[in-house]
Amino acid sequence: MTDDSDLTTGTAGGTGGVGVWFVGAKGSVATTALLGAHALRARLAGPTGMVTELPALEGAHLVGLDDLVTGGHDLSEVPYRKRAELLASQRVVPRELVDALGDALDAADAEVLVPATAATVGEGGQAAVVDALVRDLRDFVRRHDLARLVVVDVSSTQPPLDPSDETLAADLATPESVRSAWEAGRSPLPLSATYAWAAFEVGASFVAFTPSPGVDLPAVAEQGRRAGATWAGSDGKTGETLMKSVLAPMFVQRALHVDSWASFNLLGGGDGQTLADPEAVRSKTATKAAGLAAMVGRPVPGPLHIDNVPDFGDWKTAWDHIGFTGFLGTRMTLQFTWAGCDSALAAPLVLDLVRLVAAAAEAGRTGAVTELGFFFKNPSGSDEHALGEQWRALLGLAEELGRR
Amino acid sequence: MTDDSDLTTGTAGGTGGVGVWFVGAKGSVATTALLGAHALRARLAGPTGMVTELPALEGAHLVGLDDLVTGGHDLSEVPYRKRAELLASQRVVPRELVDALGDALDAADAEVLVPATAATVGEGGQAAVVDALVRDLRDFVRRHDLARLVVVDVSSTQPPLDPSDETLAADLATPESVRSAWEAGRSPLPLSATYAWAAFEVGASFVAFTPSPGVDLPAVAEQGRRAGATWAGSDGKTGETLMKSVLAPMFVQRALHVDSWASFNLLGGGDGQTLADPEAVRSKTATKAAGLAAMVGRPVPGPLHIDNVPDFGDWKTAWDHIGFTGFLGTRMTLQFTWAGCDSALAAPLVLDLVRLVAAAAEAGRTGAVTELGFFFKNPSGSDEHALGEQWRALLGLAEELGRR
Amino acid sequence: MTDDSDLTTGTAGGTGGVGVWFVGAKGSVATTALLGAHALRARLAGPTGMVTELPALEGAHLVGLDDLVTGGHDLSEVPYRKRAELLASQRVVPRELVDALGDALDAADAEVLVPATAATVGEGGQAAVVDALVRDLRDFVRRHDLARLVVVDVSSTQPPLDPSDETLAADLATPESVRSAWEAGRSPLPLSATYAWAAFEVGASFVAFTPSPGVDLPAVAEQGRRAGATWAGSDGKTGETLMKSVLAPMFVQRALHVDSWASFNLLGGGDGQTLADPEAVRSKTATKAAGLAAMVGRPVPGPLHIDNVPDFGDWKTAWDHIGFTGFLGTRMTLQFTWAGCDSALAAPLVLDLVRLVAAAAEAGRTGAVTELGFFFKNPSGSDEHALGEQWRALLGLAEELGRR
Amino acid sequence: MTDDSDLTTGTAGGTGGVGVWFVGAKGSVATTALLGAHALRARLAGPTGMVTELPALEGAHLVGLDDLVTGGHDLSEVPYRKRAELLASQRVVPRELVDALGDALDAADAEVLVPATAATVGEGGQAAVVDALVRDLRDFVRRHDLARLVVVDVSSTQPPLDPSDETLAADLATPESVRSAWEAGRSPLPLSATYAWAAFEVGASFVAFTPSPGVDLPAVAEQGRRAGATWAGSDGKTGETLMKSVLAPMFVQRALHVDSWASFNLLGGGDGQTLADPEAVRSKTATKAAGLAAMVGRPVPGPLHIDNVPDFGDWKTAWDHIGFTGFLGTRMTLQFTWAGCDSALAAPLVLDLVRLVAAAAEAGRTGAVTELGFFFKNPSGSDEHALGEQWRALLGLAEELGRR
Repeated sequence: MTDDSDLTTGTAGGTGGVGVWFVGAKGSVATTALLGAHALRARLAGPTGMVTELPALEGAHLVGLDDLVTGGHDLSEVPYRKRAELLASQRVVPRELVDALGDALDAADAEVLVPATAATVGEGGQAAVVDALVRDLRDFVRRHDLARLVVVDVSSTQPPLDPSDETLAADLATPESVRSAWEAGRSPLPLSATYAWAAFEVGASFVAFTPSPGVDLPAVAEQGRRAGATWAGSDGKTGETLMKSVLAPMFVQRALHVDSWASFNLLGGGDGQTLADPEAVRSKTATKAAGLAAMVGRPVPGPLHIDNVPDFGDWKTAWDHIGFTGFLGTRMTLQFTWAGCDSALAAPLVLDLVRLVAAAAEAGRTGAVTELGFFFKNPSGSDEHALGEQWRALLGLAEELGRR
Repeated sequence: MTDDSDLTTGTAGGTGGVGVWFVGAKGSVATTALLGAHALRARLAGPTGMVTELPALEGAHLVGLDDLVTGGHDLSEVPYRKRAELLASQRVVPRELVDALGDALDAADAEVLVPATAATVGEGGQAAVVDALVRDLRDFVRRHDLARLVVVDVSSTQPPLDPSDETLAADLATPESVRSAWEAGRSPLPLSATYAWAAFEVGASFVAFTPSPGVDLPAVAEQGRRAGATWAGSDGKTGETLMKSVLAPMFVQRALHVDSWASFNLLGGGDGQTLADPEAVRSKTATKAAGLAAMVGRPVPGPLHIDNVPDFGDWKTAWDHIGFTGFLGTRMTLQFTWAGCDSALAAPLVLDLVRLVAAAAEAGRTGAVTELGFFFKNPSGSDEHALGEQWRALLGLAEELGRR
Repeated sequence: MTDDSDLTTGTAGGTGGVGVWFVGAKGSVATTALLGAHALRARLAGPTGMVTELPALEGAHLVGLDDLVTGGHDLSEVPYRKRAELLASQRVVPRELVDALGDALDAADAEVLVPATAATVGEGGQAAVVDALVRDLRDFVRRHDLARLVVVDVSSTQPPLDPSDETLAADLATPESVRSAWEAGRSPLPLSATYAWAAFEVGASFVAFTPSPGVDLPAVAEQGRRAGATWAGSDGKTGETLMKSVLAPMFVQRALHVDSWASFNLLGGGDGQTLADPEAVRSKTATKAAGLAAMVGRPVPGPLHIDNVPDFGDWKTAWDHIGFTGFLGTRMTLQFTWAGCDSALAAPLVLDLVRLVAAAAEAGRTGAVTELGFFFKNPSGSDEHALGEQWRALLGLAEELGRR
Repeated sequence: MTDDSDLTTGTAGGTGGVGVWFVGAKGSVATTALLGAHALRARLAGPTGMVTELPALEGAHLVGLDDLVTGGHDLSEVPYRKRAELLASQRVVPRELVDALGDALDAADAEVLVPATAATVGEGGQAAVVDALVRDLRDFVRRHDLARLVVVDVSSTQPPLDPSDETLAADLATPESVRSAWEAGRSPLPLSATYAWAAFEVGASFVAFTPSPGVDLPAVAEQGRRAGATWAGSDGKTGETLMKSVLAPMFVQRALHVDSWASFNLLGGGDGQTLADPEAVRSKTATKAAGLAAMVGRPVPGPLHIDNVPDFGDWKTAWDHIGFTGFLGTRMTLQFTWAGCDSALAAPLVLDLVRLVAAAAEAGRTGAVTELGFFFKNPSGSDEHALGEQWRALLGLAEELGRR
């Protein structure tokens, strides 16, 4: 499979543009991103919500939205038009756009494949599943003569790994141990990691937009480094945690003592259903709490709940209550209610990340692009969670990319 | 009066410490600051709320709280102990501290003077009032053999000047035009400016913690520059505007379009009474709205009300509702409710500013210390309102001061 | 004109059903009510929001929605379909309903007339304007062979009368004084009252859904009584005031002392524009504050603001902050945020009121139907504002109507 | 033990007043009630928060606060003065009252006994524990020559019974089965029920202010009926559920469809610690959810969390988010934040209940006083949860009692 490293070196790559391969291609985020990219190309919508369209990032020489080619994997075969109409009925995207861009949505259906699974590959096990994913990616690159490829995980959140499973930990230590496990008939890679592995096999970049364990497992990251690939992750920062990343530094810089921080999240839709599973929600709550502790400098008491409320659809309401102490022990409070549409917040960031990760790869960067922590709850390769600092790092990256 | 410039040059100054002269010495902020300074000295309270006690500012070599000497002007002759007991009954300060520090409070009463007014100085007019203020400051410096003096305006908010009054504008153009107006029997300086003028006459620094017109008038600023004085202002940023200064940059950096920002402030106490006067409130709402527009890059629609609700006492509750648009025109909202105690938030910042302005003067700085915008709604000499940027500027100042 | 009293007596009336004549027929409320009535008839929507469809009111023998015939006055000639599409774009009504019921909307356009004004009637003055309105109503009744007619004022809010205008007060004392004023060339009736007067002239019922001065003026009410007409008003209770009407009794019944009640209303749309006019808003804030005082038994301190924020469209967000004291003086707070769609809340109540007022007229009631206070901020003929008590009164009326 | 039924018949009772026996006498609620009763007697505080002091209940001829005699059981031997000072430091009661009433608090310590437990009674088991409680109550009555006694459970919440435990269910079926279980060496009564049982043994009334299983168990209720006792319960309605009991009827009466109701409770103090136990919290969440379903007429989706946040002390903040649908399917939201002091809300209601239950007993009532549902989340003997209806029932009771 090493003949695909042309994507990494960029010397032998095609010239047809940058490919975007969505894991979870029919989900709300991917559908909104797809619709949005077409809307922007057709001048039917402006770039609100896209960070890479801000004047401050203008000099970074990023790929134009016209040069993005999209495809992906999804178990669902519902047509994009239907998915988009459903999103319109939930006020995630405007109905007018769906009507105007119906043809583009229909055309996009052809590039979404049902992924191989253990059941479909027969005896080959996880190695065969990965091989099948690799073939799908390689075909996509060739079909469109792509110069680069970015694989983006926007599929359902998966639970974190069981930390007490020592065999699993040993299997996930190095690329070699993963392969040995495969030979022994085990399937050590969690689903999200099979995609990261496959991406690295073809020299593609990888963006982990969910909190699922994937690119940060030692074996997978090492695999990425050996392939000279770039990646960014994980878990897009779109709402309550975004708020925390500006409020916590404010309290710290003003020397106010945060006594407690209670966080309540209400959401519906597919995400709500997934997170109603107590196992899956652990992944999410863990990354949410860690960032706050890192910013405040110690764990902060207070509950963090994520609840599924079906009537919320793709919308999320977060209520946070912060108790804090000021001068001479005076106790005060701050509350906020964030009512946001998760897919509308996430989709433009996904497009931003594709452009930035592709440019970083183009500029010869390998490994985690740590300056992209701005976009994530759990930034790969960085412990900085304050949005202001992350913004400065992002501007620094844009400047570096502009020097290409 | 030029023989007092020793405070500025620092060559002939005393060695007894740094003086703090409160304009509005019996108000809630000054009383809380006084009580707090004594509590910290006596190790009865920790430094929560004091920015200058953060590890990040440790190297700035600021004056110790033990070396501060306080005094001030106030029309009220209510003893500090009584004022502090009232604040305790409103939950602004702990009753235990008031009981423990009663003697220190009693002792402080002697250093608070009733200021001269047009009525008490007889025929001399505003020039005579200023002269009397100068005498009070000079006596205070000599009495305590002070090395430096910082005059801090924490008195009631005054309305902004009438922009259509052309005579007044001409009178306030230069120090000379002020003096000519005095000779012609006019009193061009607003009350807050008479204190700034007097401070500069004795070479003291000046901190404008209220939004009153004072140090930013052309004649007064020029008077300060000629005296080689330092100053900082204006209008302490303690609650709702503090929140704006982290939230507005967040929206901007995420390319989200702020459609409207409605701000409602409920407060009681003396501040509430003052701001119930529609004239006085103009000063406050003007500085509040300007900062938001500067951060967002355009005026943002939405009402801004400040209402007096007597039962709130010294507490303030602010409710803000922000309507914003994301990708493809999706509308979302953020609301917050801030319930804070204004004096408890302001008092430690006043102590911070005294230490920082005194150190800046010591380091040879003159004019507005623009790196102190972190503390203000309407930063003198700067148009930067984003807290993150202001924090970086403050750290830069601390580093510069540390090199003394 | 007395030959139209057949509507009142019911003896000579037609048999074609109950007519609804909207003053402000192209406004958001009337358009939503019209669309909703057609949707319910076509079984395309359920009766959510309609009080008269609750099981508790089943026995009242009200007119079926199929038997309502609508028409009205409006200065705007924008077609209903366009108005409804605009409402759909603001999420007030579902786009699907507008598409499905387009023909019915188009047909309704023919029944909306541009009303006569002082300019169009020439020399005749207000008497001629009223005559023209009467002719329009009479034509409508005859055209559809109506058994009854209910005129509903859902037009823009008008300011309250100037209480210091003594001539005006004298002119509005009796029907005779109004006519004398007309003869003297004056126009004493405010616009909303001309419609009430005209309604009573033809023996129709009148519903004042806005706070405009109309049916409660002495001359107009007397005119109604002499005509044997029924009416209900004023100012539909749909959001914040509805909340007050259950929360204030709760505090009172629990012996908790309400210290302050601050009310902030943000709204856009046509209502927002009208209420941005400080004169018009007085009408609204006056009725809002009076109800609270009546329930608590004394005026309650606290500001009440209504602000126009264009991006809210037809939606309204109200934030209320209630400070209250419990046992031994302990101070507590309640806040609520109501985010409602005014037209969606008002429209079904308008249909409810038409049915109830028509039935009351049918049952021989004359004058203000005081049991309908449940629907209003400023209930005609009643000082009861607590929703629970108003609900009981409504149930009593339903029972009385059921005995017909 | 039947010679104590004099308390019930009132014929042989003493004349010294009405006794109040607190189970959990040193808890926050009992301490606040005790302090408050003394403050009211001494005219140091007004009756805010006491329903029985409202003019509407004036005619009910209730016992004066001067005629109440208090005592109780508690495992804690911390003096009342200390407990009250702690409450003052948490802003539950004013420090000034504690200082002024210190002697009364000290005197009250003597009437609080450490209750018998299985460990202290030796071999006798639960029967012996109950006997010991009975002796304590009887001694209290004799010591103060009481005319009546009301036992009030304000102790920590206990978990509900295990519904799958069939032996337990059989043991709790009748008074006889309880006694048989005792003879067989089992202890079927949950702790709270032992107090109810003992109260009924001496003919006292019982008030269940916690959600613990007690008076509503079949055996215990039957025991109460046989003793001719009166009782009321359970689980005082003081905050979030109080709000629900006015808001849910509002939605229902306005025909608005409640889609979801999310409830979040943050509290500290002893109650917070108890409810941090997932078993104990079940008791509370069950009664909270049932009332809402009863009022809306069906279960309403949405999470209900109760979280312990230590820095809240005796204060509770509840945030509720209600999603509802109006006419034509338009979705709207209501949020509220209630920040209350639980003990300050509960204590006066406890005094109210003592007075009302005593009067009901005096008037010859036996069994659950169903008209007291106004005070409870889980009203004994009633399925009415709407506050308005409960208020009417309470007024009816007051009228009945006034006819004595």
